[in-house]
Amino acid sequence: MNINANDRSEEPHMAPDPLRINADRLWRSLMELSAVGGLPNGGVCRLALSDSDKAGRDLFIRWCEGIGLHTRIDSVGNLFARRAGGDSQRAPVVTGSHLDTQPNGGRFDGAYGVMAGLEVMRTLREADIQTRAPLEVAVWTNEEGTRFAPSMMGSMVFAGLLPQQAVLQTADATGITVGAELQRLGYASGAAPGHPIDAYFEAHIEQGPVLEARGCSVGVVIGGQGQCWYDAELRGFAVHAGTTPISVRRDALVGAAAIVTGVREIGTRFGGYATVGHLVVEPNSRNVIPDGVRLTIEIRHPDDSARRSMDRAVRDLVRECARAEKLECDLARVLDQPATPFDATCVGIVRAAAAADGFPHMDIVSGAAHDAIAIARVAPTAMIFVPCKDGVSHNERESATPENLAAGCQVLLRSMLARANAAS
Amino acid sequence: MNINANDRSEEPHMAPDPLRINADRLWRSLMELSAVGGLPNGGVCRLALSDSDKAGRDLFIRWCEGIGLHTRIDSVGNLFARRAGGDSQRAPVVTGSHLDTQPNGGRFDGAYGVMAGLEVMRTLREADIQTRAPLEVAVWTNEEGTRFAPSMMGSMVFAGLLPQQAVLQTADATGITVGAELQRLGYASGAAPGHPIDAYFEAHIEQGPVLEARGCSVGVVIGGQGQCWYDAELRGFAVHAGTTPISVRRDALVGAAAIVTGVREIGTRFGGYATVGHLVVEPNSRNVIPDGVRLTIEIRHPDDSARRSMDRAVRDLVRECARAEKLECDLARVLDQPATPFDATCVGIVRAAAAADGFPHMDIVSGAAHDAIAIARVAPTAMIFVPCKDGVSHNERESATPENLAAGCQVLLRSMLARANAAS
Repeated sequence: MNINANDRSEEPHMAPDPLRINADRLWRSLMELSAVGGLPNGGVCRLALSDSDKAGRDLFIRWCEGIGLHTRIDSVGNLFARRAGGDSQRAPVVTGSHLDTQPNGGRFDGAYGVMAGLEVMRTLREADIQTRAPLEVAVWTNEEGTRFAPSMMGSMVFAGLLPQQAVLQTADATGITVGAELQRLGYASGAAPGHPIDAYFEAHIEQGPVLEARGCSVGVVIGGQGQCWYDAELRGFAVHAGTTPISVRRDALVGAAAIVTGVREIGTRFGGYATVGHLVVEPNSRNVIPDGVRLTIEIRHPDDSARRSMDRAVRDLVRECARAEKLECDLARVLDQPATPFDATCVGIVRAAAAADGFPHMDIVSGAAHDAIAIARVAPTAMIFVPCKDGVSHNERESATPENLAAGCQVLLRSMLARANAAS
Repeated sequence: MNINANDRSEEPHMAPDPLRINADRLWRSLMELSAVGGLPNGGVCRLALSDSDKAGRDLFIRWCEGIGLHTRIDSVGNLFARRAGGDSQRAPVVTGSHLDTQPNGGRFDGAYGVMAGLEVMRTLREADIQTRAPLEVAVWTNEEGTRFAPSMMGSMVFAGLLPQQAVLQTADATGITVGAELQRLGYASGAAPGHPIDAYFEAHIEQGPVLEARGCSVGVVIGGQGQCWYDAELRGFAVHAGTTPISVRRDALVGAAAIVTGVREIGTRFGGYATVGHLVVEPNSRNVIPDGVRLTIEIRHPDDSARRSMDRAVRDLVRECARAEKLECDLARVLDQPATPFDATCVGIVRAAAAADGFPHMDIVSGAAHDAIAIARVAPTAMIFVPCKDGVSHNERESATPENLAAGCQVLLRSMLARANAAS
C-alpha cells in the first residue's frame, strides 16, 4: 500500500461560500473544556475514563443537547452526537476525535477535533442549514492509551480491529477494568460498535513542526505512515578499558553507535523517519569495555515499498555493524504496520476546501497515529491538520493559534457540507 | 613525561644462573591462598580489611615467619616481611603487591605479586644465599578501592600521595572506617609509612591480552600510561519521532553516537586507548527523540605529548559533534594524570633477567594502575607482567598458567638478586 499524493484527477472545485464558523466561540469552547482536568502550567490531565474524562464528556453532551443534537453511546463508550439530515436513509458524515489526554497533556490534542465538530454543528444550526446526509460528532474512547493499553482503543473496536470483550476486560495498573469504569461513570451501553459511516473527517493539531515551518495554516493529510519497530541486542566482551588494545576489543557501544549513525542515514536517504530512541549500556562503567547494548529502532514511511527498502537497509546495517566489531547480535521486528492511505475523494474535498478559502495549505502525511487511521479501515477518511507551536505535543507547553484552529474548523465545515450534500 | 623504551645504553648483561624458584610450591601457595575468601566459581572475595582479608594476611605472616622473616606493619596497615642483608645500612630491595580483591575477583590479581615475593624468599633460604642489601615483601593495603575509595590507598600513603589521617577516617558504605577496621583486625600500628626503599619490583598478571597474543611469558613493564577522564552532557530537544522530520531534529543520541565513533578513531589514530564506557539516554523512549545523553570518555597513552594531542582531539570532536546536531554541550575533564615512566635501570634489570633465562618477553606499558605506579614516585621501580587467559581480570574467570607464573617469579628472583647484590 502506498500513499500517493499526486492523483488529483478527480479533484472537486469549490466556489466561495459565505458560511463561516465562529472563531471566538471555538476558542472559548476549547478554553472552557481545558479547565476540566486543567493543570497548573496550562496543560490538561484527563486520563481515559477518569472522573475528569467523564466531566469533559458531560460538558460536551450538555453543549450538544443545547443545540438539539441526539447523543448515543456504544458498548466501549464511544460517543456520537447526531444532527439529522434530509435523507434519514443515508449514512452519516462523521467528524470527531478524543477527549482523553496524556498525564501532562496539552489543551488541543484530541479536544480540538471534538470542539471543531461541535462548532460545525453550531454554525449549521445558526444558519439553519440542513444537509442531505446526517452529520455526527464522535468522541472515541481512550485514544491515548496511557491508562489502558492499547491506544486508539475505541476507534479500533469500532473498526473491528480489536475485540470488544477483551477491551472491556482490559485493566489499568491498579486492576480497574474499562468495563467497570464505563459502568461507574454512567457511560456503559449494550449497543454494538460499528454503525455505517459515509465518510470520516478528523481535525487535529499536527504534533510536528512541518506546517509551522512552511507557513501553512492547514495540512491536507493524505494518509498515515507505515512503521516498523525493532528491538536489537548486541553482545561484546567486557574487559579493562586501560589494558585492552583497540584492535582486539569487542565493544558493544562502538557497534551500537555505528547503528545509531546508520539509522539516521537511512532515514535521510529514503526521506522517511528513522530513530533510535532507547539505548541501554552494560555494565556502563567508565573503564570497562561495554559488553552489552540493547536498543530500539523505529522506521516510518508513507510509501510501503520505500519502507520495505528501509527495512532491508536496517537489517543489513545491524548485521554489518555487529560483524565489524565482532559482536553477537539479535534483531527482532516487533511491529510491522503498513501505511494507511486516506480516501482520495475525501482528501480531494479537504484540499479543495482549503484552496477555496485561500488558506495556505500543503499535503502532509500523519506521522503519529490517530483514530482516523483506524476508521480508515471501514470508511472513506481524511484528516485536517493545523500547526502547533514548535511541533510540541504530549506536553503542557502544547500551543496553537486561534487563527489556525479556526482555519482548520472552516475547512472541516466545508468538507462535511461537500460530502453530506453530494448526490448519494 | 614520556615513557621511552628505546634507551637501553645502560642495559646489564646477566650470565645464566642455576638458582631456580620452585614452580610447584609457588602454585600450591597461590591455590591455598585462593581458598581464603574462595568463591563457588573459582574466584575470590577478600575485600580490603574484611575478615577474609585478615585471614589472607595472617596466612602470609605464618608462611613468612616459617622461613624466619621479620614482619612489621605501618599505620595504614601496609605489611612488610624482611629478610636481612649483609649490609644492614642499605635500604631494602622490595617486592610485593596486594592481598585484597574485587568482590568477584580472581585468584591472581595482587596475590601473585605477594606469593612470588614469598617464593623468592623461600628459594633464597633453601639455597642459603644472603644478599648484600636486605629484601622485603610488601603487602599494600586496599589496592582495589572497592570497599574504601580510592584505590592504591596503602601505597599512595606510603609514597606521600595521600594523607594518612584522612585515609584512616575513610569510611565504607556502612560507615565503618579504615582506622576502626585496622584496630578490630589487629593490624593497627603507630609506625609512620614511608621507609627508604632502594628499588621496587612488582610481579602482576597483565590484565590485558597482549602478552598472550604475542606468545610472551614475560612482560617487561616500562611504565604506566597517563590518562584523562571526561564527563560529557549533550542536550537536544525531545519531540515525537514519527512527526519530526530528520532535518529539524536535535537528537542528543545521534550526537553521542558520533562522539563514540570519533573517540574510537582517536584511540586508533594515536595508538592509545580511548573508550566511552558509560552512556545514559533521556527520556529513553522508543518513539521520542532523545533530548539528553550523559557519557564518559577515557583516554590513555604512555606518551604524555601524544595524550595531550588526544585531549585536544577529544575536545574538538565533542564540540564538532554537538554543533553538527545543534546540541548544547558540557564537557568536563575530571582526571588528568601524567604517565609514570619506570626507572630505566630497574627496567633494564628485568629485561636482562628475562633474556638470561630465555623467556619470550617484550616491553609493555601498564594500562591499569598498580601499587608500583605510586611507589615509582619515591623509589626506582619496575614491574614484571605475566599473561592471563584472554586478558580477563576482575572476574572469577581470571586464569594464568603455572609455567608463566613461574617464569615471572624467576625473573623477579634474578632482578632482586641483581639489584640487591650490586655495588651500593
